[in-house]
Amino acid sequence: MARALVLTADGFEDVEVLYPYYRMVEAGFETIVATPGGGEVTGKHGYKIKADASIEEVDPREYDVLIIPGGRAPERVRLVARALDVVREFFDNDKPVAVICHGPQVLISAGVVRGRRLTSWWGVKDDVIAAGGQWVDEPVVVDGNLVSSRYPGDIPLWMREFMRLLDRRGLLKPTPEQVTG
Amino acid sequence: MARALVLTADGFEDVEVLYPYYRMVEAGFETIVATPGGGEVTGKHGYKIKADASIEEVDPREYDVLIIPGGRAPERVRLVARALDVVREFFDNDKPVAVICHGPQVLISAGVVRGRRLTSWWGVKDDVIAAGGQWVDEPVVVDGNLVSSRYPGDIPLWMREFMRLLDRRGLLKPTPEQVTG
Repeated sequence: MARALVLTADGFEDVEVLYPYYRMVEAGFETIVATPGGGEVTGKHGYKIKADASIEEVDPREYDVLIIPGGRAPERVRLVARALDVVREFFDNDKPVAVICHGPQVLISAGVVRGRRLTSWWGVKDDVIAAGGQWVDEPVVVDGNLVSSRYPGDIPLWMREFMRLLDRRGLLKPTPEQVTG
Repeated sequence: MARALVLTADGFEDVEVLYPYYRMVEAGFETIVATPGGGEVTGKHGYKIKADASIEEVDPREYDVLIIPGGRAPERVRLVARALDVVREFFDNDKPVAVICHGPQVLISAGVVRGRRLTSWWGVKDDVIAAGGQWVDEPVVVDGNLVSSRYPGDIPLWMREFMRLLDRRGLLKPTPEQVTG
């Protein structure tokens, strides 16, 4: 079974975590939520999520897909050195990464933005540009292994394009019914 | 383009509306949120959703798919006579219906539960049974045109089965990429 990793922390934008988390489970992925210290986290809207793992102990080689949602969580995630190692391992190996909203803040800290085409929450656009990124104001931007979006309203297009990327990479398994029927 | 209708109201369980709403858009459906009076509604966790239509003016023949999420909204939706007409039109014509949590309250008021196999939030289990339903404690229950689940944690299985039903009914169109690639 393919494995997805979600990096988040307190202050996450609730639906930006819940949608891709449930979406990956729906698609048959074993989906792990990792937080700083492995503690339960609370979203801006009050949803609580129990972590499956501590970011400090994540081995990125165990995962096929990385998702970094937004809210105020990325400013906490980027302070964990291992989170940046995880991001670099994904980019070094061209493995699929989905970011939305403030998620690109973690990419900036990991030093992987230079020369890449992406979008983000408008409020951190200038940070993306200062880090060498080519910032685009579009609902979803696909650049190689990276699929980025701006805010919750982009979620349907964000995940549609991410699923297409996973399909191209052979990571989407047909459901039993699709096989037989 | 196939069309999906979401019936909800103030007090909706946020992710039970947001997930299927975004999921149907992701799948290429024109997705309409209808509320009592057509006003903006606020979820239990504070998400606000602008309605696209007033339930009182919905013509169910214009829609292929019906979704009734939970929270405290269904107790408000069931008070709108047209909502019950909509539900009956869907059941009379064997069109796909997804309900979760307290959503089955609207089915009870519409008189379509008798003899059907379904699940719901545990707190309204006895109402489902009193209305003649066969209540099952499973994450997702598929009975003909009806796909039901219990609470937000069931969402991935709920929507996976609903998508399979839509696929069987020929309502899921391949994306352009799936056609060409």
